[in-house]
Amino acid sequence: MTWLSNFLVAALAGSSVVNSLPSVSPFVKRAGEEFDAYSMHGRAGEELDSYSMHGRAEPASLAGVFARENDGTCPAPFAIPGKTPKKNIWAGLTKDEVTTVLGYVHDPVSGLNLTAYDKKGLWDNYVYLVEQIMPNKTDALAYIDGKGTAPDRYARVAISFGATDQPYYEDYIVGPLPISNLTKAEPLTYYYNKGSSKQFNFRHDNSLRSVWKSQLCEGLQDITLDLLGTYINTTSATSALQAIDPLWEEDGRIIEWSQFRLNPDNVGIHSVSTLVPQGFYLKLDITGRDPAAWKLLGLYYAGVYYETADDLRAAMAKADFVRTEKVVVTQSLMTNRTGTPLPYDDEAPPVAYQSQKRWSVDKDQKYVKWMDFEFYWGFNKDIAVTLFDVKYKGERIFYELGLEEALAHYAGSDPKSSHTAFLDSYYGFGPYTYELVKGYDCPWNADYVDTALHMNGNTTTNFDSICFFESDAGFPLQRHTTSKMATVTKNIVFNMRFVSTIGNYDYAFTYSFLLDGSVEVNVRASGYIQATYYYGNEDYGYKIQKHLSGSMHDHVLTFKADLDIKGDKNTFETTSFVPATVKYPWDKTEMKTMKVERSYVTSEDDGKINWASNGASMYSVVNKDKPNVWGEYPGYRISPGHGTPVHSTVLESSIIKESGHFATHHLYVTKAKDTEKHLSHSANNMDSAYPIVDFSKFFDGENIEQEDIVLWFNLGMHHLPHTGDLPITLMSTAQSSVVFSPHNYLLSDPSRQTRQQIEIDLTGEKVTADHNGKKRGVCTASIVVDGDYSDYEGGSTESKMPRVSACSNC
Amino acid sequence: MTWLSNFLVAALAGSSVVNSLPSVSPFVKRAGEEFDAYSMHGRAGEELDSYSMHGRAEPASLAGVFARENDGTCPAPFAIPGKTPKKNIWAGLTKDEVTTVLGYVHDPVSGLNLTAYDKKGLWDNYVYLVEQIMPNKTDALAYIDGKGTAPDRYARVAISFGATDQPYYEDYIVGPLPISNLTKAEPLTYYYNKGSSKQFNFRHDNSLRSVWKSQLCEGLQDITLDLLGTYINTTSATSALQAIDPLWEEDGRIIEWSQFRLNPDNVGIHSVSTLVPQGFYLKLDITGRDPAAWKLLGLYYAGVYYETADDLRAAMAKADFVRTEKVVVTQSLMTNRTGTPLPYDDEAPPVAYQSQKRWSVDKDQKYVKWMDFEFYWGFNKDIAVTLFDVKYKGERIFYELGLEEALAHYAGSDPKSSHTAFLDSYYGFGPYTYELVKGYDCPWNADYVDTALHMNGNTTTNFDSICFFESDAGFPLQRHTTSKMATVTKNIVFNMRFVSTIGNYDYAFTYSFLLDGSVEVNVRASGYIQATYYYGNEDYGYKIQKHLSGSMHDHVLTFKADLDIKGDKNTFETTSFVPATVKYPWDKTEMKTMKVERSYVTSEDDGKINWASNGASMYSVVNKDKPNVWGEYPGYRISPGHGTPVHSTVLESSIIKESGHFATHHLYVTKAKDTEKHLSHSANNMDSAYPIVDFSKFFDGENIEQEDIVLWFNLGMHHLPHTGDLPITLMSTAQSSVVFSPHNYLLSDPSRQTRQQIEIDLTGEKVTADHNGKKRGVCTASIVVDGDYSDYEGGSTESKMPRVSACSNC
Repeated sequence: MTWLSNFLVAALAGSSVVNSLPSVSPFVKRAGEEFDAYSMHGRAGEELDSYSMHGRAEPASLAGVFARENDGTCPAPFAIPGKTPKKNIWAGLTKDEVTTVLGYVHDPVSGLNLTAYDKKGLWDNYVYLVEQIMPNKTDALAYIDGKGTAPDRYARVAISFGATDQPYYEDYIVGPLPISNLTKAEPLTYYYNKGSSKQFNFRHDNSLRSVWKSQLCEGLQDITLDLLGTYINTTSATSALQAIDPLWEEDGRIIEWSQFRLNPDNVGIHSVSTLVPQGFYLKLDITGRDPAAWKLLGLYYAGVYYETADDLRAAMAKADFVRTEKVVVTQSLMTNRTGTPLPYDDEAPPVAYQSQKRWSVDKDQKYVKWMDFEFYWGFNKDIAVTLFDVKYKGERIFYELGLEEALAHYAGSDPKSSHTAFLDSYYGFGPYTYELVKGYDCPWNADYVDTALHMNGNTTTNFDSICFFESDAGFPLQRHTTSKMATVTKNIVFNMRFVSTIGNYDYAFTYSFLLDGSVEVNVRASGYIQATYYYGNEDYGYKIQKHLSGSMHDHVLTFKADLDIKGDKNTFETTSFVPATVKYPWDKTEMKTMKVERSYVTSEDDGKINWASNGASMYSVVNKDKPNVWGEYPGYRISPGHGTPVHSTVLESSIIKESGHFATHHLYVTKAKDTEKHLSHSANNMDSAYPIVDFSKFFDGENIEQEDIVLWFNLGMHHLPHTGDLPITLMSTAQSSVVFSPHNYLLSDPSRQTRQQIEIDLTGEKVTADHNGKKRGVCTASIVVDGDYSDYEGGSTESKMPRVSACSNC
Repeated sequence: MTWLSNFLVAALAGSSVVNSLPSVSPFVKRAGEEFDAYSMHGRAGEELDSYSMHGRAEPASLAGVFARENDGTCPAPFAIPGKTPKKNIWAGLTKDEVTTVLGYVHDPVSGLNLTAYDKKGLWDNYVYLVEQIMPNKTDALAYIDGKGTAPDRYARVAISFGATDQPYYEDYIVGPLPISNLTKAEPLTYYYNKGSSKQFNFRHDNSLRSVWKSQLCEGLQDITLDLLGTYINTTSATSALQAIDPLWEEDGRIIEWSQFRLNPDNVGIHSVSTLVPQGFYLKLDITGRDPAAWKLLGLYYAGVYYETADDLRAAMAKADFVRTEKVVVTQSLMTNRTGTPLPYDDEAPPVAYQSQKRWSVDKDQKYVKWMDFEFYWGFNKDIAVTLFDVKYKGERIFYELGLEEALAHYAGSDPKSSHTAFLDSYYGFGPYTYELVKGYDCPWNADYVDTALHMNGNTTTNFDSICFFESDAGFPLQRHTTSKMATVTKNIVFNMRFVSTIGNYDYAFTYSFLLDGSVEVNVRASGYIQATYYYGNEDYGYKIQKHLSGSMHDHVLTFKADLDIKGDKNTFETTSFVPATVKYPWDKTEMKTMKVERSYVTSEDDGKINWASNGASMYSVVNKDKPNVWGEYPGYRISPGHGTPVHSTVLESSIIKESGHFATHHLYVTKAKDTEKHLSHSANNMDSAYPIVDFSKFFDGENIEQEDIVLWFNLGMHHLPHTGDLPITLMSTAQSSVVFSPHNYLLSDPSRQTRQQIEIDLTGEKVTADHNGKKRGVCTASIVVDGDYSDYEGGSTESKMPRVSACSNC
């Protein structure tokens, strides 16, 4: 019985058919070649027709047709082996390396006094992360350019030190690896610039504080039952506390404002916790490690601040006390399908069909190749995916390209929203890079790759969490019609995508590669907004539900783009359209017209740049030492793609202080340095006035003309949620991207190479078309619409609000 | 013999197979249902399986599978009849109406003294266009809202008056139609504001001037053969003259600068004419209608202006005379596929497969419906397509949405590029809305619609020149993952697309409709740049070929968006993110934070608006009289989508003068008026200082708070062509769009209605998925990759440089 007949039989069995598909179904994860999913009738051999199926060189006049089996079905696709030209030096540590490193640092002789993660108590030191320190560029270049050996390997061992009155984070560098008598473990400092490599860990005692806060709330139950209709105590809770991030420092004391919110367990599988704030806030002094010293400093409700609970009780007893709306949980907060079905919407929308993959992925070596592009990738906890050594037509265009940090800066009249500015590398994009939903996040025939991190003594793998696929952009790359001919070229794009769900928000990152040589970096946001309670927030957002304000916030996601354009010595060029009044020699009068002005950023002092109003300036990274044959400098331009990439509205934020310097402009150019590897540190949010990496220190006036330069750019959006953000934010509007495109880089458009174009000749007696030697025609294939998800594993969500506390058993 | 076996037989016959496909092939144009193209094995009946194929109401638990024929193939799609709810009052004139109108105005009693187009001489008056004058909104609203009769019908009869010393254009309004004793023909003035409705026609004697210029050039052949290697005379020519646009006025004389360019006939079917300027320019006085008064005023070559040809000859005789590069025609100017084929590029890229269309088009009534969107469209010569009465969920959101004018403003040190600023409605977008290339411009299964114009005595139809199709945007509309569930929704988009190729440039317009209620208006440019000769143009563009400068220019495409949000009385709202320093009652110190500032544009005096730097302001059209249940004003927001929409760099251009007021800002808001129907006129470029419609006159201080307001917005880009623009410009970078999105318009996200989402439940013992009742599963279908183009008709290109002259028989 063939697979198809199996399917038919299964189909007749009823509605559970899809979940009982036989194991050879296209939906079985990682069971052999993914290609098989789309080659239901394919045979393994090469029984191809007379047209050269695999040939690359047949003339256009021999335009092929699709091969067909004898029954007219499309042939089995062949596999393109993914093969890295070199070992990936950014691929991360091996499990063996991690194990030996953990053994090395836990050995008492290390002097680090570490406790194994699963045995640790509050007063212990423990390793929460082991990962590769990416090699210094100065060490890596010789190797990847074929002139040297692979750079030494080092591990970042991230330690939480709890055996001290003041808990702190500190990173150690351990290497070279493998462990030998050359190996050392030392504080990692060479690309940090705080002075000290230690960073306070104000969250170390969160578990203890949760209990303390539950006890505290137990004493406030009369108030919360009255005002909110909910309560928290040490045995059960219908509300929870949600804290500010970062914590606040006032007169030398550490302040946590906590907001009551409805307990999200009330709403089934739907996680509405950021949509149910209750408008009641506690000001807590949580200084130090002794719960006896912690105290309730005040309470805030309906615009009034009370120093004690009894003050609030006294107010509540008065007739004129203002009570605000209680939280309502309505359908508008739920993500499930609801409302009148749309016409014909049970029919299938267009699905992308592709039998034969045209790219290759070396999953082991984390290397991918499509058309004239190829690159390696690395993966870590803070920023998830980074691309390395991105080559186009055999030449490096990026040494490094990836996320660095993400800020979500809120504002509001209440203490919670006005004191929230997430620096998401703290939580990390890596741990939350969950399994993708096939057919929805990426096509079924994408290549899916796992990601893994070594945290808290374990290696945790998220299966199928990065995808690679080709897509048709839905509009031509270029076209032209004349009376003699028509020419149109498809805009076929290769994409790498992953989604990091950090608590309430989903960030989808897509790196796209185009036939014109350009690279787009796109981030789209979805997931639940972090709304705030409506009262008093008229100046900070729209009222979007009975109890809810769509809290205003800025998303600023900052990226590193270390471009190398025909070598690593480059210059940042600005080319501007400017109005001009000119008297030309051939004319009698002056003309009001325009000119192009070119300039170059020569010093880091001028390296902070904003997108020009009216898009009047173009920005490129060029190589002035290697002008092309016409005398122009080859380069790659960076320009806004989708949406309007923004910097932060608040340039000197009271809450992110010295940790937010990456968010004050749209672009930055600095000299590349091994000592300025990253512009942020995952623990910067712990003490934002004294960050481990302070980006402002990168700007020290160095020459950046024809030097190895790095471009740091921001994506993001100002987000003023409106009713359409309920239940969750839409990627259609919450997106931004930049495009890196060749700029005088080649001597003409490279998309002329693709066969995915048509030229129709109208000059002859009969209209003829040049299909450019690509296979074409008709064959039958199985179309899969909406697959089976019985093996989806998803991932476990950890809130990025880690100090949510409630009773332990509710 | 089935179609497939026909195909197989044909395939064996060799390379010409595709052009000899049997007539039942999917590629035969307009031969019955386009659906057939994708339902190779489909039967006409309704032999569907037990799952309710057409039902809308089955519960989610009855998630269907695709119906299959007995042999496993997908079923034939069913037709969704397109049916307009009302007669389209913007659908254009009928052929009968045009014929009777032409008869009416040609009748000597009209007093217009018209000559039939095909009999006209230079000293005759003739009609060049007959088309509908769209009804006044004030007349139309009652009808479309069901409270009145259809408005009277009127024709615009556009006449070129040549029987006079000063030829001019003038529009007449003829109506009401059909012709009766109420019908009148009068100058059309009510929505023009020049004062006079006449506009000089400086191009009337172009044919005469062509001969004159050829004769003139004959006398310069010694010069052009020496300097350019080409010549023009009255019997043959290897060069041609290309004139400025608009013409120039100097001391009361009409000046035409003409540039020599290589004769494009030299390069086969490739039309490289705008890439082969030769750097030699003639200054011609073409005042008046008598060739005897026309004269050569000067010559410009290599930076030097000569008053006479003999002056130039004398200079050429000197040893130090500077000769510049001769034009080279290289492969980089050609659009055909060239260069090394890309790896695996003969294999098929992803193709969109969709058996069942989920929308309907009433081709006769020009009406379309998809999901909760529906609208009418009209078509005319100047601006091609306009959308009318765009409804979402049964309520009008746009009364009118469409292009108004397009400016392409160049600059350069030479007389040609510095004197070129096309106002493209002169040429018109309508006549050049050519047949689309199926599979490349739009998918094969799109609905294709013809366009027709009544010009020069004929009705000319461009077949299949507008397409309607669904597409998958390639990224989810929204998603979220938690430990309990994953939800993802497809971003299925409905598109209306057409491409106008005006001479060298192709403008692709796409109106897209999203499941979140938003509408995107996108324009992408491709085709040949109008380059200029390199000499002396360093400040105006990059050198991109031996002889060529990529001439800097601005594209500004201006659109009318007459939004009606819950009625026609609306207000333009600005909502800004602003930094703020605030002392909160619950806090001891001031905080540096941010706020939202809301304001409303109350007067046309404040109705000229630019996109805010850093995207800090949001712009919406809201209805302040109809706050939603939370007190917020329902509205639609306008925001940049792809790219950076721009206004013109030159705000007071010497050459477009008073005709360019639409290009000075990004957005404009005015009061809607029947007398301000369009912001430009197709003959504005004839005498740009005295345009028939002067947009600046729209701004006369009227109140626009809760009035019927119109938004005029600009798309476009600053274009500094680089080598990658050779041979033609890429739509990947040359695009811009705005998105109109619901803004507090509904009470939550309407995409929750779609079945095209998945909810995976991870809380049970087995993972389950809710497919929301859509059909799903697997069936076999024929996949068509790259079709047949033997019936492609294309269209005839008319240059938008109409005063190109050469000999008549070369």
